[in-house]
Amino acid sequence: MIKIPEKSDLLEAHKRIKNFIHNTPVLSSKLINEIIGANIFFKCENFQKMGAFKIRGATNAIMQLSESQKKKGVVTHSSGNFAQALALAAQSLGVKSFIVMPTTATQVKKDAVIGYGGTIIECEPTLEARENTAKEIEQEEGATFIHPSNNMNVILGQGTACIELLDEQSDLDYIFTPVGGGGLIGGTALSAHYFSDNCKVVGGEPFAADDAYRSLQSGVIESNTSTNTIADGLKTQLGDQNFPIIQKYVEKIIRVEEEEIVNAMRLIWERLKIVAEPSSAVALAALCKEKEVYKNKKIGIIISGGNVDLSKLPFTN
Amino acid sequence: MIKIPEKSDLLEAHKRIKNFIHNTPVLSSKLINEIIGANIFFKCENFQKMGAFKIRGATNAIMQLSESQKKKGVVTHSSGNFAQALALAAQSLGVKSFIVMPTTATQVKKDAVIGYGGTIIECEPTLEARENTAKEIEQEEGATFIHPSNNMNVILGQGTACIELLDEQSDLDYIFTPVGGGGLIGGTALSAHYFSDNCKVVGGEPFAADDAYRSLQSGVIESNTSTNTIADGLKTQLGDQNFPIIQKYVEKIIRVEEEEIVNAMRLIWERLKIVAEPSSAVALAALCKEKEVYKNKKIGIIISGGNVDLSKLPFTN
Repeated sequence: MIKIPEKSDLLEAHKRIKNFIHNTPVLSSKLINEIIGANIFFKCENFQKMGAFKIRGATNAIMQLSESQKKKGVVTHSSGNFAQALALAAQSLGVKSFIVMPTTATQVKKDAVIGYGGTIIECEPTLEARENTAKEIEQEEGATFIHPSNNMNVILGQGTACIELLDEQSDLDYIFTPVGGGGLIGGTALSAHYFSDNCKVVGGEPFAADDAYRSLQSGVIESNTSTNTIADGLKTQLGDQNFPIIQKYVEKIIRVEEEEIVNAMRLIWERLKIVAEPSSAVALAALCKEKEVYKNKKIGIIISGGNVDLSKLPFTN
Repeated sequence: MIKIPEKSDLLEAHKRIKNFIHNTPVLSSKLINEIIGANIFFKCENFQKMGAFKIRGATNAIMQLSESQKKKGVVTHSSGNFAQALALAAQSLGVKSFIVMPTTATQVKKDAVIGYGGTIIECEPTLEARENTAKEIEQEEGATFIHPSNNMNVILGQGTACIELLDEQSDLDYIFTPVGGGGLIGGTALSAHYFSDNCKVVGGEPFAADDAYRSLQSGVIESNTSTNTIADGLKTQLGDQNFPIIQKYVEKIIRVEEEEIVNAMRLIWERLKIVAEPSSAVALAALCKEKEVYKNKKIGIIISGGNVDLSKLPFTN
């Protein structure tokens, strides 16, 4: 059994990372409110450093290491935002970072990691190869492995976006987040529990990668049977650190179709005038899907990031 | 000769429209600053009501009408942002609006005008047909014609974005704006003149619609010989109200190629994570083009709007 963190753990995490992150803006759209029939506040982590909330957890996790650990650096495996997040957080804190990336990762993503001073180690594009390569780096370099989502200090860091959102809008009825590896929704659920009166947390998840939905149904961590979704940040799986938190503090998870994700993404781009990732749109898609349930409620949505390939957008006539 | 407005005219315009517009945020990007070698502050009018700065001028112009004029409504011709701006401003102020639009205007644009309560009158897609149709409405309805850019109250309204930008960043060396009909750059030049120490205003204009550049060269208002540019908001021409202001207070106009506009637009979308129109990107494209001249300067850029057709984006690999 894991120990569920306390309120003070979240407060300390926020205080710790505050000077290394942006307190991102909260935006609203009258027209989106009219369409959904609710009062929605978007916490825009697409404006966060490196373009996603993940810098919060990465920074908190590195800052909790001992001085001797910091000297030997950190290692993770990721082809997505956490790769950049760990590299940038490490750079800001004067720590070496080793990023295990699959050979299939795009050059843009590799360049971003290199730009933030990370050392890339390539491996075959399988989970097994990633994990083994990361283990080798741990052994060879003495670097500390930091998991992108299944690490309590990462979870606490991700929860700080919700603290800021509730600082600005204290009387939210619900907060929606996308669900990938469980770090964001886990941290958000903890913060909503400790920093609001009765704000409930709801997750949005693609049907095509619905491990979290099925895990909540069965009571054990289930695997994704497919990951064929445009929401590429949500292909990852829950872990033993965040699942108990999600079980205890998340009200429900709503699954959405690919088309619903694209429609929500278009609404965000057209009406909020911001560039948000498909993964970010999954939370709004979930709310759209069950909008009758949330009529006239005051709802926070965490826009998780804005790192997209503009040459490969899903918008068509 | 027109009478150049005074500082108090701008202050009063701002006070007048303040409650009907957003004071839009000013964003920065460390990476864009590094690429350009300057310190850049983007005034994000894409977050403005109806998605563009044009609501400022429209609101100011309607508010300056007499009560009897207001009763009979307002009329303009536009297929772009000013159509929506006048309709929304009129609706907010309880005034009827007649919007002359070419038969070629897209349904999305017509729907937006209708959504803001405007009455659309269709006409052939020529400037002559537009002007004649608007004149008919003036005569039939007694409505007051409000030109999208060649109207001093519109110019003063557009100048309020610069007042807000200088409120936030008082020591700018330069402000860049796109140049279309001359309303935005004219108002900006007036505000920079009255509200800064020595901040100079520079315009960006597509080579494909370079009437303003050539007008400044020749000293008389020149016509566009072509308007084949992605920056669809900049196809319009200077007028006798704004040209004298531009002659007196604008330092220079830099012309840019279509490819430079798309590159600047991509930089804005990828790094600022905002949805900005091609027309908006022309100002940054101009700065990119002559970045050596503006090295280490503190520069404001007005992002004029964010109304784009997501199905027709120019980004390719």
